[in-house]
Parts: sequence; structure tokens; C-alpha cells
Amino acid sequence: MVKIGGSILDNNHYLRNTLESFADLHEPKILVHGGGKTASKILEKFGITPKVIAGRRITDADTLQVVQMVYGGLLNKNIVLKLQSMGCNAIGMTGADANCILAKKREVREIDYGFAGDIVQVNSTIFQQLLNLDLTPVLSALTHDGKDQMLNTNADTIAADVGSSMAKYFKVNLIYCFDKKGVIQKENDENLVIENINRKSYQNLIKNKKISDGMIPKLHTAFMALEGGVQNVHIIHHEALKNVAEGKIQGTHITL
Amino acid sequence: MVKIGGSILDNNHYLRNTLESFADLHEPKILVHGGGKTASKILEKFGITPKVIAGRRITDADTLQVVQMVYGGLLNKNIVLKLQSMGCNAIGMTGADANCILAKKREVREIDYGFAGDIVQVNSTIFQQLLNLDLTPVLSALTHDGKDQMLNTNADTIAADVGSSMAKYFKVNLIYCFDKKGVIQKENDENLVIENINRKSYQNLIKNKKISDGMIPKLHTAFMALEGGVQNVHIIHHEALKNVAEGKIQGTHITL
Repeated sequence: MVKIGGSILDNNHYLRNTLESFADLHEPKILVHGGGKTASKILEKFGITPKVIAGRRITDADTLQVVQMVYGGLLNKNIVLKLQSMGCNAIGMTGADANCILAKKREVREIDYGFAGDIVQVNSTIFQQLLNLDLTPVLSALTHDGKDQMLNTNADTIAADVGSSMAKYFKVNLIYCFDKKGVIQKENDENLVIENINRKSYQNLIKNKKISDGMIPKLHTAFMALEGGVQNVHIIHHEALKNVAEGKIQGTHITL
Repeated sequence: MVKIGGSILDNNHYLRNTLESFADLHEPKILVHGGGKTASKILEKFGITPKVIAGRRITDADTLQVVQMVYGGLLNKNIVLKLQSMGCNAIGMTGADANCILAKKREVREIDYGFAGDIVQVNSTIFQQLLNLDLTPVLSALTHDGKDQMLNTNADTIAADVGSSMAKYFKVNLIYCFDKKGVIQKENDENLVIENINRKSYQNLIKNKKISDGMIPKLHTAFMALEGGVQNVHIIHHEALKNVAEGKIQGTHITL
């Protein structure tokens, strides 16, 4: 289970290298991707100003339509095209396809996130069936409510929930790839990666404000995945994915 | 095997009714959709003027990107969302997904069609496997070359070629749904539908200029499908699809 996001999706060279490393992984695998800056750029072309609160996009109806086009049509298919050219039999999906991820629209409390979805159920049977056909599902950050409504859903959360749901079939390794070398200790040199984080050290890191605010939701989903039955969670630099096929993982290892 | 196109895709009411009729069909089924006017409208938003020669879109790189977003992300997923809400377990695909339709870029002769694809091979095994999982593939008018290039491909041709490829597994009925009541005899009242066309009467209709120019490529693909092993081809009004589940087909029946 590999999740890619951020600048990997905005840079064709990074994307190609990361996908080559992913294609090299021998085990049955699933890829989840975010939107990068492409969605924001195309929203601007449509005259829509992207709104983000606490790292989450506010998705009104017009934004959703563009997000559906960009995540589901442009980025998802670009990844599938590249993986196919590398001999990896990818199949691109949103949560609506084969009803694989059912969600419900987030309730309006302090913030109205618009058409944002919280996952209700992952259809692990269909993923297992597709993997049995030697297919590699490629999931964009979109789910549906089963009532004709697409919903925008955080890709880290999708990776954690789909990973957990597959734990009954496989020993699941979940790898978050991004543009840093792992979880970085604040106010230190960029190269000082925290090699291991468990629930206790995580609480200390938060208390002492040693990690960036942006990292907290990612670590939160990592712990959710572990509690859901995922065996290992790693947060790594996208260039480090090429060593994973040989069993070497450099970055931050999260355990309970 | 049902193909929908034209105004059905541009009108939410028509689309919903047609998809309800499609969802009601009991047999294993595949849906193919074109792009309607939505692609042209969104191309205009991007400042790209749509170019069409002899009913075929000229697809430059910028156009392809928009077509990929609109066909693969917007229209395809809108159809999947609606079918899912009707209890039909749809899975949206381009030809790149699961490598289901391989094509090659059309050679430049008199006209440079740009990134237009001519189908080389349909992967009938994967369609059979997905149908066995009780899934309903929904195909947009996109194929790929296996070398990281998406290609724009006529939806009527996709329906004919996929239909032919499935003839080794099933008795295939191919139905083209559009906004007329069938093949109409020129210069006559709109309601005068030609009920049966075979290869011989087709030649006479062309010779005597009795059918519109736009109908000729559609009839050409219909005959291709029949020669490929498809049992029946019908060209019908989208509202007539609701009677097909009961075994009644009103429109034009094409035979060899």
C-alpha cells in the first residue's frame, strides 16, 4: 500500500521515478494519490479560488466538478498510463467505481467543508478480487455516498482505511511517500529524521512542539492504520521507494 | 453492449432515464459513452477552439488533456455515480485501465487527427473477468498505446470492437442509443424510420443519397460489429431503451 502526494505529482521526473519504484514492488499492491498543485492550478483556470482550512480543501459544487476531472481523469489516468508503460497492470478508480469506498458527506459543525467525505466502508472484497486478477488498483482521493454524489476525501485517510481493510487478507505495509526524508524534528537540520515513532513518543513530540502542524494529521492516520491491523507504516522520501523492493526502508517507522 | 452519445449526455433528465433503462437490463452488460457537447464547452473555458473534420475531433496535446479530464473524469464518473445509485455495480474505465483497449496513433495522411487512436487489440479476457465479478464496465472514448500515451477514439468504434471481442463468450446485442428514432430516410417525415437495413439495402441507400452523411460512419461500424461476430445491432432512440429489458426493440435493425 503506497500513497504518493505533494510535489511528486507536480513534477514529471519525480512521478516517473516514483512509479518505476512502485512498479518494481513484487507483492500485490495498491497506489493512492493526492492532487498536488495541479488541481489548484486548473481551479484557477476556471476562475475558482482554492480554499484550504487546516490542510483540507473546502469543496463547493464547482470545486468538486474540477476536482473530479483533475483527480479522476487527469492525474489518475496519467499514473495509469505510466504504470502500464512500465508493465504494471494498473486500473484507475474512484471510490464510486465498483462501489469500492463508500463515504458520507461531512456534517457541518464549525467549518462547512462542502462535498468532503468521511469513509463509512471499504469494499475489501473487490480489492482482493482485482488483486487476484493481477491488477494494481490506483485510487484517487474521491469517494461516493451511493446516492449519486461524489465526495472529496483525504488521500492519507484513504490509504490508511484501505490498508486496514486489506489486513484480513495480507500482511499490509503502508508507505507514505512525500518530499521530505521522513518525520523531521523541528528547528533542527532537515537531515535529522526521527527514525522511530510510537504512540508514546508521538505524544511527547506534540507536547514539546517538536513536529510541524502539517505532520500531525499524517501521523494520526498512520496510528489509525496500525490500530486497524496494518503491520508497518513508514513515512519516507519518494526517492527512497526504489530501495523498498530490496527490503531496505529509510525514513520514519511508525509503530504502536 | 449499449452505446450512448450526443444529447443524452448533455441533458441530465435524458441521461438519468437512459441509465435507469440500462441498469434494468438483466444480462451481463457494458456501456460505452461519447463526449457530447460538454467537452466542447470545457475546451472553450480553456480557450481551445474545438476542431472537428468529418465528425472526428482533431486532438492536439492541449485538447487531449481536456478530453481526458472530461471523458475520463467528469462524464465517466457521473455515469458511474448514477448507475451505482441505481444498484448497478459500474466500474468506469478508459482503454488504459487494466490495459483493456490498446490502440495506435492514427497515421498522418491527408488530415492530421493528432492524438486519435485506431484500435489494435481489445483485451476481452479482462472484460469477461470483470463481468464474472458482476461488475458493469463503463467505457469512455479513450484508448492508449501502451507507451504512456492516451488516445482519443470514436465511441461507436469502441462499442463495435469491444462487442465483437465479446462474441466468443456471449451472444452479443449491440445497441446504439441516440436522439432519433432510428435510421431516418432522408427528405421524409422524421417518424419514417427504416426498420431493417442489410448490406445490400445499405449500398442502395448510399447510392441514392437517402441517408444523412452523419449516419454513414455509424452504419459502417454496425456492419464491422456484425462481421466481427456480434449477433444483433440496433440503432434506437434513447427513450426506447426502457423496452429492451422486456425484449421489445423499436428502431433500426441492422443485419448482414
